Parts: sequence; structure tokens; C-alpha cells
Amino acid sequence: MDPINVFEYEALAKQLMDPVYWDYYAGGSDDEVTLQVNRTDFNRIRLRPRMLVDVSHCDTRTTVLGQLIEMPIMVAPTALHGLGHTEGEYATAQGAGAAGTLMTASTESTRTLEEIAQAASGPLWFQLYIFHSLKLAAELVRRAEAAGYQAIVVTVDLPILGNRERSKRHTISIPLSALKEMVTGVEEEELRREPMTWETIDWLRSITHLPILLKGILTAEDAVLALEHGVDGIIVSNHGGRQLDGAVSSIEALPEIVEAVGGRCEVYMDGGIRRGTDVLKALALGARAVLVGRPILWGLAVDGSKGVQQVLKILQTELERAMKLAGCPTVASINRALVKWT
Amino acid sequence: MDPINVFEYEALAKQLMDPVYWDYYAGGSDDEVTLQVNRTDFNRIRLRPRMLVDVSHCDTRTTVLGQLIEMPIMVAPTALHGLGHTEGEYATAQGAGAAGTLMTASTESTRTLEEIAQAASGPLWFQLYIFHSLKLAAELVRRAEAAGYQAIVVTVDLPILGNRERSKRHTISIPLSALKEMVTGVEEEELRREPMTWETIDWLRSITHLPILLKGILTAEDAVLALEHGVDGIIVSNHGGRQLDGAVSSIEALPEIVEAVGGRCEVYMDGGIRRGTDVLKALALGARAVLVGRPILWGLAVDGSKGVQQVLKILQTELERAMKLAGCPTVASINRALVKWT
Amino acid sequence: MDPINVFEYEALAKQLMDPVYWDYYAGGSDDEVTLQVNRTDFNRIRLRPRMLVDVSHCDTRTTVLGQLIEMPIMVAPTALHGLGHTEGEYATAQGAGAAGTLMTASTESTRTLEEIAQAASGPLWFQLYIFHSLKLAAELVRRAEAAGYQAIVVTVDLPILGNRERSKRHTISIPLSALKEMVTGVEEEELRREPMTWETIDWLRSITHLPILLKGILTAEDAVLALEHGVDGIIVSNHGGRQLDGAVSSIEALPEIVEAVGGRCEVYMDGGIRRGTDVLKALALGARAVLVGRPILWGLAVDGSKGVQQVLKILQTELERAMKLAGCPTVASINRALVKWT
Amino acid sequence: MDPINVFEYEALAKQLMDPVYWDYYAGGSDDEVTLQVNRTDFNRIRLRPRMLVDVSHCDTRTTVLGQLIEMPIMVAPTALHGLGHTEGEYATAQGAGAAGTLMTASTESTRTLEEIAQAASGPLWFQLYIFHSLKLAAELVRRAEAAGYQAIVVTVDLPILGNRERSKRHTISIPLSALKEMVTGVEEEELRREPMTWETIDWLRSITHLPILLKGILTAEDAVLALEHGVDGIIVSNHGGRQLDGAVSSIEALPEIVEAVGGRCEVYMDGGIRRGTDVLKALALGARAVLVGRPILWGLAVDGSKGVQQVLKILQTELERAMKLAGCPTVASINRALVKWT
Ligand SMILES: Cc1cc2nc3c(=O)[nH]c(=O)nc-3n(C[C@H](O)[C@H](O)[C@H](O)COP(=O)(O)O)c2cc1C
Ligand SMILES: Cc1cc2nc3c(=O)[nH]c(=O)nc-3n(C[C@H](O)[C@H](O)[C@H](O)COP(=O)(O)O)c2cc1C
Ligand SMILES: Cc1cc2nc3c(=O)[nH]c(=O)nc-3n(C[C@H](O)[C@H](O)[C@H](O)COP(=O)(O)O)c2cc1C
Ligand SMILES: Cc1cc2nc3c(=O)[nH]c(=O)nc-3n(C[C@H](O)[C@H](O)[C@H](O)COP(=O)(O)O)c2cc1C
Repeated sequence: MDPINVFEYEALAKQLMDPVYWDYYAGGSDDEVTLQVNRTDFNRIRLRPRMLVDVSHCDTRTTVLGQLIEMPIMVAPTALHGLGHTEGEYATAQGAGAAGTLMTASTESTRTLEEIAQAASGPLWFQLYIFHSLKLAAELVRRAEAAGYQAIVVTVDLPILGNRERSKRHTISIPLSALKEMVTGVEEEELRREPMTWETIDWLRSITHLPILLKGILTAEDAVLALEHGVDGIIVSNHGGRQLDGAVSSIEALPEIVEAVGGRCEVYMDGGIRRGTDVLKALALGARAVLVGRPILWGLAVDGSKGVQQVLKILQTELERAMKLAGCPTVASINRALVKWT
Repeated sequence: MDPINVFEYEALAKQLMDPVYWDYYAGGSDDEVTLQVNRTDFNRIRLRPRMLVDVSHCDTRTTVLGQLIEMPIMVAPTALHGLGHTEGEYATAQGAGAAGTLMTASTESTRTLEEIAQAASGPLWFQLYIFHSLKLAAELVRRAEAAGYQAIVVTVDLPILGNRERSKRHTISIPLSALKEMVTGVEEEELRREPMTWETIDWLRSITHLPILLKGILTAEDAVLALEHGVDGIIVSNHGGRQLDGAVSSIEALPEIVEAVGGRCEVYMDGGIRRGTDVLKALALGARAVLVGRPILWGLAVDGSKGVQQVLKILQTELERAMKLAGCPTVASINRALVKWT
Repeated sequence: MDPINVFEYEALAKQLMDPVYWDYYAGGSDDEVTLQVNRTDFNRIRLRPRMLVDVSHCDTRTTVLGQLIEMPIMVAPTALHGLGHTEGEYATAQGAGAAGTLMTASTESTRTLEEIAQAASGPLWFQLYIFHSLKLAAELVRRAEAAGYQAIVVTVDLPILGNRERSKRHTISIPLSALKEMVTGVEEEELRREPMTWETIDWLRSITHLPILLKGILTAEDAVLALEHGVDGIIVSNHGGRQLDGAVSSIEALPEIVEAVGGRCEVYMDGGIRRGTDVLKALALGARAVLVGRPILWGLAVDGSKGVQQVLKILQTELERAMKLAGCPTVASINRALVKWT
Repeated sequence: MDPINVFEYEALAKQLMDPVYWDYYAGGSDDEVTLQVNRTDFNRIRLRPRMLVDVSHCDTRTTVLGQLIEMPIMVAPTALHGLGHTEGEYATAQGAGAAGTLMTASTESTRTLEEIAQAASGPLWFQLYIFHSLKLAAELVRRAEAAGYQAIVVTVDLPILGNRERSKRHTISIPLSALKEMVTGVEEEELRREPMTWETIDWLRSITHLPILLKGILTAEDAVLALEHGVDGIIVSNHGGRQLDGAVSSIEALPEIVEAVGGRCEVYMDGGIRRGTDVLKALALGARAVLVGRPILWGLAVDGSKGVQQVLKILQTELERAMKLAGCPTVASINRALVKWT
């Protein structure tokens, strides 16, 4: 029997995968408190569905930065898809495209950004880590532009790596060699780690005309700064509970950021999305769309591109059902009154 | 030993029933969060009993839409009683009548509404699904009128079916063939699914003089709309946690609806009623009466009409005891000060 | 090794006692929700201890209705001590007296009130149930006066018995024959059950000069009525969770009653007291003293009068230690600022 | 594999140690409620990290009473290090010094304060119990001054010992003989227990020029009194849940004390610190630094001075990582906006 929800994909993927790789995908930092609350905080939110609305034509489509997608659910950037499936990011890109949505390719992919773009049938964003010199970052941006990526997603919550204890407990470590070296022809001395600040965002703004999104914002204060520095979108995220443990859940952080932004740019969120109703709650709290991390990897590990497509399809079907049951025929009709905190 | 509370009926019914049928009766949608909070939210409410009131004559009787019933506890409409007992809705109707209360017959019964009316010894309401053409709905209403049903309960929370995963996991599915086709002589092309909206309620209002109740309202906003569309009663319900998972519990939704209605129509609730004290809490929060779904089915499965009667009798006895212990000799004396939220 | 706290007495008593008797002592009504919250609500209260107070002379003594007792901890009225120990209420009275505190003798004792008075070495209150005719009640009051009881504690929360399901599940029932018939020489027709109301309290007030206490008040409203009817004290109680299940815990009810009373009569509480710190919390919230039910029965079952004395001694020692650690050298110095709710 | 966090040190220490000694180290008083909430209350606080701050140079150093330490984490005074390791306080002092931080030596050490001072490579505070005569206390203070201790930490929450039931349940008791008699040459009659009050603090103030800190303050009221009596610092503490059970957690008490103090003296806290993020939360709520009790003893038991150093190193590394991930390059940059209560 095919999996009927993403939790069944999770169980299957766990069975299939090498425990070391599994723990890399599944784990959070320290005591995994934030990883947990990313899920449990959704249960603190209750839906207030409306009845007797004509939902016979229910439309899950939306746009993100003007790009039409079939559902307000996108693929979050995650590293090392090669650990889950031999086809790696190829499969993910194909699955996402087949499902009619956008994929964000990670800097830490096991395929080059050009290879991913070639394999992809849907729109792409490029997730950028600025670890080394700005010259390297500029090179990646230029390549992303050339390959047709539609936006640069700068991940800002990883000045250093979080404390992932599951991995520390394994004697075997993740084969980072699998990482496709995205950057070549750079002088050795340029490989020093570059501190990333708001000035780095200004610099990035100056070198590309692509929209810039910041991924990893968790406070209203930083959202306001982001606007001042001219970003085009904000992804509310705690990196799936893998960076600062004890940080607020994404869904708890979302409202204050939406309020601070006041419609001046698009706000997305990721972290803990596992059901169509989770998407509905996030949208009701002001997210334009959500991104999904681990469930995509579960689909990938279980069934390659077909698994990715199927996971997205399940979430879309669940969202559509939830929208109908909540009296929301369109994404635009989802609003704040749909939810209450308990 | 006879069951001493409805939970013991639940355990017995589970033992006796085919697991596929059991899961159909017991299950909720998705992760069954709403199914759960329908129960647990009662524990967030504490009773503030009053002492030294003369409760030697304690009267659980009340009226619903003018109809006297022995207790403010009615039978909720539930589908397919034939799965629980060979006599199906006959037994339920007889049990409800013997207990002195009202039964709501489901559109999805395994007996026709006329057969149920004939078997019944107590008052009846007819629960109407408007799935197909309005012509079909009109026909059902006419038949319900003719058969002596006292009100039409329009279920508004099922524009599509909720995601009942327990049933999806079974390889055998529910024999919907057991459904007594309530509608005959309808042209094929009329069987298209009709979107139900507030206009449908207006139309229904125009074709029957029977009182109209909406079942499945969960917000003050919709309660106000219901009044504007001339309904005679509202049943606060989330369909026993079987439709939108994550929806507010019925008992949590009740107060805002009671407040919005302000006495302009009767308000009932169902969802999670298992003890006399649950009834007391719902009445204190403004419900005129409650409806009970699954416990009736447990009684039915264990002991046919006698089981149904006994489940209702237990709840009445518990309610009467609770009223006495709380200092409420009559249903009318139960008021808001009797409860506090923790 | 001797038990070091009352929980160890509980475990021992459970081992020693017939399960039917044990369940009679231990059980609550329905789902035992109130029984549970009587305990767990103490954990919602946190202590704010004060330092650098001279507690070298710490005095746990207090007065109740002018009577000096060694600790603000008294014996609650509980039925049928004969089930726990062959000496029954004799042992309890001796234990309480040896510990220097007051015992409330139940109407439902296995010894007559005169026998208990004779055995007792400490002060006594008489707990009165008014079940039958007023004539019978008057007779009991007269006998209590004659035997030297210092107050009448009228239990007002038992217009009928709560639903004790543990007992219903046993095939053997409690030998009520063990009850010492406290009342004799009454005509048959007088044995009808008499509804107890505020007028009954007025009548009681008119026939005795003993102080009258109401046991079982849980609301500010009833506390105000009690004052209007001239009572001398209020015992905030839910009968140890044995009557209305879902009722507020005693400790949660206490503050609103203390506030409503405003010092016009003494307020006591019982329900869930198991540690010296529980006593401290109750006193900080305005109780003059607390009563203890089940722990006394555990002591009784384990070791007769010595067990009763030892349970009281443990609680006193714990209270004294808690007072010292909280910076309260006297009972009078315990105040509201000592606690906060979380 | 070396322990990767302090919980792994805990597990190892438990394995290695005699259960009687282990329980002495691990236990709290009564039902260990305060011991528990000291930990769980940290989970009620969520971090609001800031992004795009230059944290490439992250500095965990701070000063306490003007003394520079490598991290805002110090060694809390704990008794009887000889139970954990044969080298006892020598090892602890060496480990703390090697880690670059301050140790508070307990009055109840298994080495004399002079011996500890000699072994130590870092700054020291002396924790003073005033149990006996003031003359004895004066003698200890004079010796501490002479040995180079930089402050006197007066523990004010132990007018008597808390009720440590783990120890009561063991037949073998703690070898208090291991205590190095810190006091000699005192007349017998001076050994009476002296009640400690605010006047004792005034007296202490009058006999030493060393800074005086009060350890064990849990209320704003006492913090204000402390300031009035001229103290130089306050350690918010409930003695690791070993004294008054049911007392507020240290982290819950901290904010009201910080507010009452208003910067007029330094405020520290201890209780339940097990992760760098706990330190971050305490500092965000206004603590200048934290002290750590049990984890130090775990490190000591597992690996002597090296274990102590390693435990401190782990906490520092975790704090540094947390500071970077939260956007705080310095201790001074940590502020109230970094946390919210849920
Ligand atoms: C295995 C794994 C690898 C990840 N790699 C990256 C990455 O390379 N870049 C990035 O910005 N976020 C990365 N993330 C974070 C995700 O983009 C996303 O924020 C997170 O997974 C969302 O939470 P969810 O997994 O609960 O959906 C990674 C997450 C996981 C689980
Ligand atoms: C097995 C089952 C079938 C149901 N069928 C119907 C139905 O045909 N029409 C309807 O309006 N509600 C239906 N309901 C919902 C009930 O009317 C009612 O809202 C719910 O059962 C109340 O919750 P409770 O089961 O916790 O008492 C059904 C519920 C169950 C459990
Ligand atoms: C076995 C048992 C018998 C009781 N019998 C009486 C009684 O005869 N009269 C009465 O007023 N209360 C009676 N109570 C209630 C107690 O007086 C008291 O309210 C309750 O036990 C306090 O709660 P605790 O057991 O948690 O301390 C009884 C309680 C128990 C447990
Ligand atoms: C085994 C042990 C012994 C202690 N001895 C002392 C002591 O001698 N003097 C003192 O002021 N505090 C003493 N404390 C309390 C600690 O200073 C500190 O307040 C507490 O351990 C902090 O909580 P934590 O263990 O969760 O870090 C002791 C604590 C423990 C666990």
C-alpha cells in the first residue's frame, strides 16, 4: 500500500536509510527542543472553519515573487540529497517540477547548480551560504543567474554550525566529499571565512538584480532591518531546529514578523510542516507560502523523484481538503480569523 | 455485570465489532487532534457547585424547539447503524424513544426515513445532507415532513469528506451498499454535486415550514449569518472530529456562539459528551441541549435498542446526580457561574 | 524502617488492607478528575520563601474557634474507621489527641459519638449529616453537646452520594452494618429524607449554641450566604473528590472564598494535603487550618492510634521545617505574598 | 568517546559512584518538585536570536565584582567533594582555574580553606555557613581573607536542613567525618546554633572589607532588604532544590529580583544550568553570571580536575556557540529582548 501521509514516508525512509545518514537528516541541535516545538506549537493553534462557502472550485495556486506555483508549498533547501538517493538533487528537482512547485537548491548540494537547473522542470531558487570570500559568493550568484535561478535565498542563521549531537555520537561521519564543489578556480587565501552582516546583504544587493530573500529570520527587529536593507522576501525559519536550540518555533515567530513587515515584502516560513492543516495555519498567520524540508528527503529516500512528487501531492491534497473544510476556496481567502491560539 | 458507564460500553463494543466497522465508528480525521480535544477540553473546565439548594425534586426535562424531552441529551445523527446491529436504526429509534428523548436520523441511514419514523416511539429530527441536486434535497424534505419529522438538521461541515486514515488503512472498506437509497426516481443528470451555500439555506427556508437547524457551526461569524438566514437552531459541532482536524473543540467554540446568538435561537452542541458532568458543563456554557454520537453506537452494538436506551439512561442518571450535587434542581437553573476555565 | 512520609503510609496501608475496603478509602467519583486535581493543583502554586528571619523558635500552634491546637492540621471526618483497624475511631481519637490536635468525628462512625468522646484525649468536633428527619438531627446535636463536642460541622455537599465507581465494580460491598447506629428511638415515619437548605442551617442555629461550620463550600457566593446565615466557620472542601467530579480543587476554590469572607469567620480547607508545604500553601492562601482525610486512615490501617499520631507528627514536622525554610516563625506570619500561581 | 555534554558526565558519574554518595549529590528535598522545575522552567523560555551580527570574534569573558573570568559561569559551593574524588576540592579548584573561572569553596569542604587556596590557580570566593557562634564565623572570615578569597558568599537558605528523603532511605549515611573541621580552638559553649538574621549581615559587614554576597535569595522583597544591608551581590538560588520543596525555580525568581535591584548590585543565579543556552537565558534575564553545582561534581567524579575543567569547557563552548547563533558577540550584548516566556 502506498504511504497515505508524510509520516508513513518518514517511517519507510528510516527503515531504508543508513542510520548515520538518517540521523543527519532527522536530527536537531542539543536537546532538540526547538525541533520538537516546531511541531507541537502547531497544536497550540486551533482552526475556526467557516461553513456554507462555495468551495466546489478550490484553487491552491499562488504566486511567490510573481511566479505561479500550484500550491503554497515549496521545497526548502537541504544539503546532500545524494545521501538519500543516488540521483540526488536531480530527483528532487524533477519531483518538485512534476508537482508544479518551486525548489530551492542548497549551496551544499551533491550536484552543481547548473546540473540541477538542467534537470529541473519547475522554477528554482538558489540558497546561498556565504562562508568564504565574497568573491566566491559573487561567483555563485553569477552562476545562479546564468542558470536561470529566480532568486537568491541567503541563509543567515548559520554563522557557525549548530550542535548536532546525533552526528557526534556516530563514529562514521557524513561524507562531505559527496558535496559537489560548487566553486572552483579560487585562490587559497580567499577561502577565509567571511563574517556575514547586514553590509553583506547591501553588497549582495549591489551585485545582482535577482530578488534577495533572507532565510532564518526569527524576530520582528530583524524583519524591519531586512526591509531597510531592501530584501524582497523573508523566510521565517530556525533551520528545522538544527541551529540554536531553545529558539522559538517558526510558527510562533511568524505573527510578529508578519505584523512588523506589514505587507512590504513577502513572508514565508518553514519548520515542522507535516500536514495540509499546518500549511493552512501558517497561511492564516500571514505566510505567503511555506517550505518543506525533511518530508521531501523522506520522499526522495523512499522513491526518488516519484517520492518527492508524491509527498508534495499529499500535502497539496491535504491542503485542498483543509481549505474546503475551512471554507476557503482560494489561497487569498485564508485569513487571520481562521485561527486562534489556545 | 452491566456496564456502569459509557466507557464500559465502548470497551464492550470494541470487543464485539469487526475492526473495520469499529474504526469507522471510532475514528477521526488526520491525526485525530480534534477528536482528542473534544474530550480533553472538558477537563479545562471546572465546576463551581452550589450547596444547600433543595434538590429533592430534580428535573432533567427540557424542551427543544418546543418539544418536551426527558433530558437535555439527544441522539446525534450518525450513519450506518446497520454496521453496529442488524436492526440498525430501528433499534436506535426504539431505544431513544424508550429513554424519552429525540433522535436525529441521518441521511445515510441503513433504513429509509419512513421506516425509522414507523419504528420510532419518540420525536424525530431529520438530518439532511445536500450532496446532489436541490431537487433531491427537496424530495427528502417533503418525505421527512410527511413522515412526521419535526425539524430539518442541515449538516454544513461536509462539503467533502474528512481524511479518515483509519479507514484508509483497512483493505476492506465500509459496505456503503448497506445505505438505504433514500432517493429514487431521480434523473441521472440531476445527480451532480451541488455546492451548498447560504443561498441553499434560503432556498430550503422557502420550501419547508419545518424548523431548520444548522449542524456544524464553529464560529460566532457563522452563527450570526445563520440568524440572518432565518434558522431556528444551531448545533455547534465539528462532526466528532471527523472533518477538519485541528478545528476547535465543540465545547471551546460554544461560548462565542452562545454570546453571538444572544438568545435569538436555540444553540445545541455535540462532540465528546461522555459523562453527565459534560452535559452540565455544556448547559452552563449556554447549550440548550447536547447530542451524543458514538456512545449511542456503542450501546447499539452491545445490546441493540436496550443498549441505546441504557446509554441514555446512564447519561441521564449521571446528569441528574451532577445537577443535584451542583445545586441545580432544574435545567433552567444551570447557568454560566457554574463553570470556570482553568 | 518507619515510614518517612505519608506516601509510605499509603503504600503500606494498600498492602495491608482488603482491596474492597482500600478502594472505599481511596476512591473518588466518576473519572476521579477532582481527586487528581486536588493534588496536582498544589503544583501550580510556588513558594516565595523569605530569608534571614529568626526561626529558631518556630511555633506551629494555632487556635481554631478559640481552641488551641499544636498545629494547623486537624483530622477530617471520615466514615467507617472500623474498616481500617479493629479499634476504629477509638484509635483515631487517641492518635489525634496524642498529636495535640482536634478530631472531627463523622456521623458515619463505627463507634457512637459518646464512645469516641470517652476515648478521646483532645478536642472534638462533630460532623453532622442531615439525612433523615430534623428530629433525628436535633437528637444528634443534643448528644454531641452533652458529650462535649465543641462544634457542629454540617456537611453540605452530600445531598446524594457521589458516583464511586471503584466500589460499584466490586462484587462485595462495604459492610454498612458496621456503622454504629447513632440514632435510636425514632418513629419510622420520621425517617424520610429531609432536603437540606439554608433554612435547615437557620433551624440548626436556633437549636444549639455550639459553633456551626459548613463543610463542602466551594464558591464565594455560598460563602457569603453562609455568613448571612450566621455560621462560625467554613470548610472549603470537595469531599476529597468523592462527590461532584469535575468540581474545582479545594485549593483553587480557597482564595475566592477567603476574599469573600474577608475575615468575618474562620475558613479551613481539606483535600489533597499530603506534605507540610501543602499546609503552608493553604495557610498562605488564607486558610486558618487544614483537615486531613485519607492520610489519617492510612496511619490508622498501618498502626492504629500510633499510626494516626505518627502521620500527624510527620505533617507537623514537615510544616515546621517548611515554615523555617520559608521564614515564618509563627502561623500568624504566613501570608499571601508567600505564594504565586504559575 | 569523551562525553559530549554534561548529561553524559551525569550518566558516567552515576555509574561510577557509590549509590549513597550519588543520591547525596543528586537528590532534592521532599518530592523534588523544585529540583525538577529548576530544569523544566528553562523550557518555558524561548530564545529570539538576532541574525547578521558579526560574531566572528565572540568573547565569553566577563567580570564578577571586578574580577575577570573567561566565561560567565562559575563553580557553585558544594559540600564534600571527597565523596566524588579522592583529591576532593583540590581537583575542583585546579579544574576551575584551568578553565579560567572562579570557584566558590564551601564551608563544608573536605579540605581546609587554606588547602584549597593553595591548590587553586584561579580566583576564589568563600561560602560561609553561620551555624554556630558568630565568633566562629568571624574566625572563618578572617582565615578566608588571609588565604586570599575575594568575597564572602553567605548562604541564607539553610536555617535548617531540607528534607532529603533519598538519604533518609539509605541505611548508610554520609560520612560527615570527611568534613575537614574548618574551625578549631573554639570553646564548647560557643557552639550553640546562632539564628541568622539581617543583623547578622550587618555584623558581618562590620567585620570584613571583603565583598559580601547573599546566596539563596528568591524574592524581590529580600533583594531590596539585601541592598539596604549593603551587600555587594545576590545569588538567586534555591540550593539546587535541596531546601524548601515547592519553592520557585531560580530562573523564575530571577526577573523580579533583577528588576528590584535595578543595577544597584550584581545578581547571579544557580540551579539547573546544564546547557550553554541555559546560561544565555539567565544572562538575558539579567544575571551577571551563573553558578553550576552538580555538573561540576559529575566532572569531578568521572575524571578529577580534568573532568571539572572539561565540564566547564563544554559549557563555555556551548555558550559561545549559542551567543554566536543568537547574534551576541559579547556578554554585554545579551539583553532582555533575547527571550520570551511561553
Ligand atoms: C538534512 C537537512 C539539511 C539542510 N540543509 C540546509 C541547507 O543546506 N541550507 C539551508 O538554508 N537550510 C538547510 N536546512 C534547513 C531547511 O532549509 C529548513 O529550514 C528545515 O528543514 C525546515 O524544517 P522541516 O525539516 O521541519 O520542514 C536543512 C535541513 C535539513 C533537515
Ligand atoms: C460513525 C459516525 C457517523 C456519523 N455520521 C453522521 C451523519 O451521517 N450525519 C451527520 O450530520 N453527522 C454524522 N456524524 C457526526 C455526529 O452527528 C456528531 O457530530 C458526533 O458524532 C458527535 O461527537 P461524539 O461522537 O463525540 O458524540 C457521525 C459521527 C460518527 C461517529
Ligand atoms: C473514606 C472517606 C470517608 C469520608 N467520610 C466522610 C464523612 O463521613 N463525612 C464527611 O463530611 N466527609 C467525609 N469524607 C471527606 C473528608 O472529610 C475530607 O473532605 C476529604 O477526605 C479530604 O480529602 P483528603 O482525603 O485528600 O485529605 C470522607 C472521605 C474519605 C476518603
Ligand atoms: C551535593 C551538593 C552540595 C551542596 N552544598 C552546598 C554548600 O555546602 N553550600 C551552599 O551554599 N550550597 C550548597 N549546595 C547548593 C549549590 O551551591 C547550588 O546552589 C546548587 O547546586 C545549584 O543547582 P545545580 O546543582 O542544579 O547547578 C550544594 C548542592 C549540592 C548538589
